[in-house]
Amino acid sequence: MDVESSPKKIHAAVREARRRGLTIGCVPTMGALHAGHVSLVQRARSENDFVVATIFVNPTQFGPTEDFSRYPRTLDADLEFCRAAGADLVFTPQVADMYAADAQTIVRVTGLSTVLEGAHRPGHFDGVTTVVTKLFQITEPDRAYFGQKDYQQQLIIRRMVQDLNLPVTIVTCPIVREADGLAMSSRNRYLSSEERGVAKEIFQALQLAEQLAGSGSDSPQEIADRMRVHLEGTGVLTVQYAVVADPETLVTQQTRVSGGAGVALIAAKLGSTRLIDNQLLNY
Amino acid sequence: MDVESSPKKIHAAVREARRRGLTIGCVPTMGALHAGHVSLVQRARSENDFVVATIFVNPTQFGPTEDFSRYPRTLDADLEFCRAAGADLVFTPQVADMYAADAQTIVRVTGLSTVLEGAHRPGHFDGVTTVVTKLFQITEPDRAYFGQKDYQQQLIIRRMVQDLNLPVTIVTCPIVREADGLAMSSRNRYLSSEERGVAKEIFQALQLAEQLAGSGSDSPQEIADRMRVHLEGTGVLTVQYAVVADPETLVTQQTRVSGGAGVALIAAKLGSTRLIDNQLLNY
Repeated sequence: MDVESSPKKIHAAVREARRRGLTIGCVPTMGALHAGHVSLVQRARSENDFVVATIFVNPTQFGPTEDFSRYPRTLDADLEFCRAAGADLVFTPQVADMYAADAQTIVRVTGLSTVLEGAHRPGHFDGVTTVVTKLFQITEPDRAYFGQKDYQQQLIIRRMVQDLNLPVTIVTCPIVREADGLAMSSRNRYLSSEERGVAKEIFQALQLAEQLAGSGSDSPQEIADRMRVHLEGTGVLTVQYAVVADPETLVTQQTRVSGGAGVALIAAKLGSTRLIDNQLLNY
Repeated sequence: MDVESSPKKIHAAVREARRRGLTIGCVPTMGALHAGHVSLVQRARSENDFVVATIFVNPTQFGPTEDFSRYPRTLDADLEFCRAAGADLVFTPQVADMYAADAQTIVRVTGLSTVLEGAHRPGHFDGVTTVVTKLFQITEPDRAYFGQKDYQQQLIIRRMVQDLNLPVTIVTCPIVREADGLAMSSRNRYLSSEERGVAKEIFQALQLAEQLAGSGSDSPQEIADRMRVHLEGTGVLTVQYAVVADPETLVTQQTRVSGGAGVALIAAKLGSTRLIDNQLLNY
């Protein structure tokens, strides 16, 4: 497994792989890898001849009051995870390798980027779509792998790929969870042991939503309300949003459509740690 | 020479060319081709194994009061020009081939896009950079060819290519002029014969700037003033801007730097027709 911080050298390596007729899979990450990331690399390994993982804590997707500086950096462990999961190449750029001092170009998905995560984290998705476009140009993948945990992110990236004719197929992989249901996240390590005990209630609220959607007569709005009541019942989770929305447009659903689908989405703060999770629903 | 309106089929054709080891040159145009465009295709022909020209009047780069609907469409003649200049493939999409009804992604070069043309044509460069990104993804060129006539456009595209790591080299080709110096433009055909007689004064003003820069002691601001006086002296040209700017940043230059360079840029209206032109200067 090669490890390289130069965009030019990464691009040369994937071009050489393509010249040899190999298909290329890319797994963009911010490092601090966990079993969720490993599942992405394994999936990429199973579907492509040549697998590139990228590890880059992208400053432009963090707000000024967010956790960029304290975001966990665990490069040695990350590289071991990549090697074990079968990556051929890992791209580990520094910020200066990715952004010229006078850079001024952004890629923006105007509608989907403004709601939910976008409303709570202004500019976040501009940072995501811009860096993902760059990573796709550098690694030229046939397929790129994202986790469903960041539901809105994968939706926005799919929209961007379609709108800009990017020649890549987006593969969204299932959420990987801890034994108690907490979705794996690099930010879980911020939680105190007390907070860690409460964090599973986010998953419990989503399970409640799934059960209500499948069996009951509750409207999407009623399901959302029940999730919020469950979360607020913990006394320590601060709900930023708890909604049931259209899985493609993210518009909040009002009425239940038999045979239809929705997605329950939650963002909540636990102390200073912000957690998100989601669950697809079938009515 | 193949002619094709489907982005997928164009992409398949260039992928096949690349698989055969051919280098790819792309010439993006809005059709209504003239000798300036022909020089771009010829240059692409001389530097690449496989040449794709694109013909697409892109609605998103026209403002609501601009000339999108009356912009000249001359497809049969355009294809003859492409064939004669040596194109292998011509991409002729319809608007619906390029923009899904629910498309919402833009590519924006935030700084350079706001001055000069960008100030007079709000949103214009967002349309340009978005469609050029799309065309680059569809045609995957090694080199792409633009005319210096649209000086700010080629500068913005160069900035975008660098900022987004697009794997393409931008080649800027010299302005091709009519016998009297008028820069070739698809919009010249809007001019009445009387207007056509006056239009050369734009070139005359640029020649004056070149002469003053090379021989005199005038400051860039004085040179710009002299250009404006020359243009306004016609009594019929309405100057939108006549400036001398830094060739990389487009910031208006104040003081002459010996051995330095500048660019004189003019936009003027002649009746309802808007014309632009420019000239690099050496002090």
